[in-house]
Amino acid sequence: MEKTNIAIVGMGTVGTGVARLLLDHGDRTSRHAGRTLWLKKAVVRDLSKPRDIELPDGVATDSIQEVIDDPEITVVAQLIGGLEPARQIMLDLMEAGKDIVTANKALLAQHGPELFTRARELGRSIAFEASVAGGIPIIANISQCLSANQIVSLEGILNGTSNFIVTQMDERGASYDDVVRQAQKLGYAEADPAMDVDGTDAAQKLAILSHLAFGATVDWADIPKVGIDGLAADDLKYARQLGYRIKLIGSAKLAEDGLELSVGPTLVKKGTPLAEVRDAYNAIRVIGDAVGPVFYHGLGAGQMPTASAVVADLIDTAVGRTRLTFQTLEYFSIDQPPRVKLRDADTIEGRYYFRLPVSNHPGTLAAIAAVLAKHDISIASVIQHENTEDGPQVDPVTLVIMTHAATAGSARRATEEIESLESVSGSVVRLQVKD
Amino acid sequence: MEKTNIAIVGMGTVGTGVARLLLDHGDRTSRHAGRTLWLKKAVVRDLSKPRDIELPDGVATDSIQEVIDDPEITVVAQLIGGLEPARQIMLDLMEAGKDIVTANKALLAQHGPELFTRARELGRSIAFEASVAGGIPIIANISQCLSANQIVSLEGILNGTSNFIVTQMDERGASYDDVVRQAQKLGYAEADPAMDVDGTDAAQKLAILSHLAFGATVDWADIPKVGIDGLAADDLKYARQLGYRIKLIGSAKLAEDGLELSVGPTLVKKGTPLAEVRDAYNAIRVIGDAVGPVFYHGLGAGQMPTASAVVADLIDTAVGRTRLTFQTLEYFSIDQPPRVKLRDADTIEGRYYFRLPVSNHPGTLAAIAAVLAKHDISIASVIQHENTEDGPQVDPVTLVIMTHAATAGSARRATEEIESLESVSGSVVRLQVKD
Repeated sequence: MEKTNIAIVGMGTVGTGVARLLLDHGDRTSRHAGRTLWLKKAVVRDLSKPRDIELPDGVATDSIQEVIDDPEITVVAQLIGGLEPARQIMLDLMEAGKDIVTANKALLAQHGPELFTRARELGRSIAFEASVAGGIPIIANISQCLSANQIVSLEGILNGTSNFIVTQMDERGASYDDVVRQAQKLGYAEADPAMDVDGTDAAQKLAILSHLAFGATVDWADIPKVGIDGLAADDLKYARQLGYRIKLIGSAKLAEDGLELSVGPTLVKKGTPLAEVRDAYNAIRVIGDAVGPVFYHGLGAGQMPTASAVVADLIDTAVGRTRLTFQTLEYFSIDQPPRVKLRDADTIEGRYYFRLPVSNHPGTLAAIAAVLAKHDISIASVIQHENTEDGPQVDPVTLVIMTHAATAGSARRATEEIESLESVSGSVVRLQVKD
Repeated sequence: MEKTNIAIVGMGTVGTGVARLLLDHGDRTSRHAGRTLWLKKAVVRDLSKPRDIELPDGVATDSIQEVIDDPEITVVAQLIGGLEPARQIMLDLMEAGKDIVTANKALLAQHGPELFTRARELGRSIAFEASVAGGIPIIANISQCLSANQIVSLEGILNGTSNFIVTQMDERGASYDDVVRQAQKLGYAEADPAMDVDGTDAAQKLAILSHLAFGATVDWADIPKVGIDGLAADDLKYARQLGYRIKLIGSAKLAEDGLELSVGPTLVKKGTPLAEVRDAYNAIRVIGDAVGPVFYHGLGAGQMPTASAVVADLIDTAVGRTRLTFQTLEYFSIDQPPRVKLRDADTIEGRYYFRLPVSNHPGTLAAIAAVLAKHDISIASVIQHENTEDGPQVDPVTLVIMTHAATAGSARRATEEIESLESVSGSVVRLQVKD
């Protein structure tokens, strides 16, 4: 049987999982690839460090140069995180004639155009299924399986860490800080989870998916984003009373005058598929103009789900499918003008949830309602609980307002104006709502 | 731009949808294929019949021979249903050097080994994404995206017609016959829906998926199957009381001593993803040993979802990806021994729901419970409503029993024995249960 020599660069959690699949399940990979995928080298940072996996003699090395200089190695799973030296290593590997499989979404979101253009110039390919929603093969599904469609919208829970935190806060009533500690203990969150919980990770994934689905050229930093790091237990409680759950939703929607993009905690109607996605799972709902809605649900990250995506890419690359796809689809091409423009975020319509601390006096609701009316925002429902005679007399009290559809700009301006009212004694929480 | 000449054979509902995507959305297909997919011929049965689509001059023909004799046509979407002449036409087209895209699941389930072997001999390929769950790209997902996994189990709602009927009976309390008429009016059911409602269609799809996922060689007729054609409104009602919905589930599960296959109406726990699949939707849950559970949900059939799958296959075939996949994966090879054996259906374990008409006399439950105990079946719960003093005095009364796990063989033998009891006055309904 023919043999394709593979190297893994970066033997962290995912790299170890990939090595395990290649070493322990060679029958499976060769059946699907029609050839042996032979792990020839695994580049580690520190050779003396104990590992979870026993590598055959001669496989481990701490020299990336050994891989670059070995012409027999034609496919490399590059699994180093961060931007540098990951970017330079990828360029060096491609210059040396190797096709790349990567899980590094930050690198692609930041340097996609440069890397993909260089790959094309060199006749190489980059496969990146593992970069978005490890356990859901969304890259292949959008790029190939749904290729007869104009994708109309795409929305999903793209960050497993955030979803785990929100689920635990919602279901157990635990505090944000407690759940973050628990997530770190379970391996669902990094020591510094900032990129996960502030929406950066979801925005980077959404940028990659938007490019594939809509031909949009998106700098992830341009996507309006709010994280779950500021989410209060109160909002989860009120959302529940209103028949919703709060999820960190990344959303891309094709409108007549451009693409609407956003990442933020969103009230999602209970009983709808996205609302029921729990813990570290991811889910993506794609609507195509021919296929209709397709919903995907799977583990968002973790060693073996991500390794599953990397090895599927290794197989596709060894077989030659990746090259065909890569040559055909002009992924992140700097020569191609974007097919759609981003829509001005302020013009995007949606429903909103407002929570605000107000003084318990006559005229307060009237003043707030007047501001909303002025900004063309119509109220759908209001929650304000009365102080009971024998309970504690609270002031300020909490006012929750659900609106009908309004533009993001008017919601933002109304928020600012409401915050300046004398009867409003703190900042306003404003979240998007999906039915 | 390069051009691939395409022919459609069979301009029914799906063929018309495929023609529409090729003719109206050439930009989209050429972007994904890197070449123009040119509809050169469309073979119709009756040229004089009015059509929903206007074909360019010279495209429509009633002669399949014109396609066979045209060497410029290299890819054919063969969309004729039934076994013959579909089988012979496919062989003729392949002999003439054409690659095939088909939606004909009955043909593949029946003659897969012959057709795929001949395709390999001739250096041709057959793509068949549209043959199972049109709107869910499950073939590509199992064959490629999850190729690093040993699939452990696969279960789903594979027949949209049945699911529509069961959903409507359950939610509206409509009778089976009424809903079938409604489904026919809406185009969800054929004039003769027998193959859909008796489980044949689901068994054929399960046979194809089992081959891809487990390397099993399955004659669909060997899969134990029960349809929804005998489903009583009473069972939907009792299932609901017990916290379940009834769905027609096709299930394949890898056990130590072989593959467990079945198709039948099954009580599925409310709130689980499969239980919430409504109307004409399909859903499939796949568990891979690396990726974990992946859940897919989409439209099961219909003109454009199926056409979406056919056109994705046309693109993959024109690009050359299908050929690589087809050469690598020994689809339905008669030279390859099956990788797993089918497990004796009688040994498969599962929970059961029994409904039986019993006489309202002392000792009845004891007699039934004794039969179950004799067959090693343990009772989990029982529903038997008392005749109320002012209500009608009913005899026989209905007894519903939910069991703990038992083998299919003992459940079957217990059923036969219970039916022979004097206190049981009719046949026993026995359904599978999934939590």
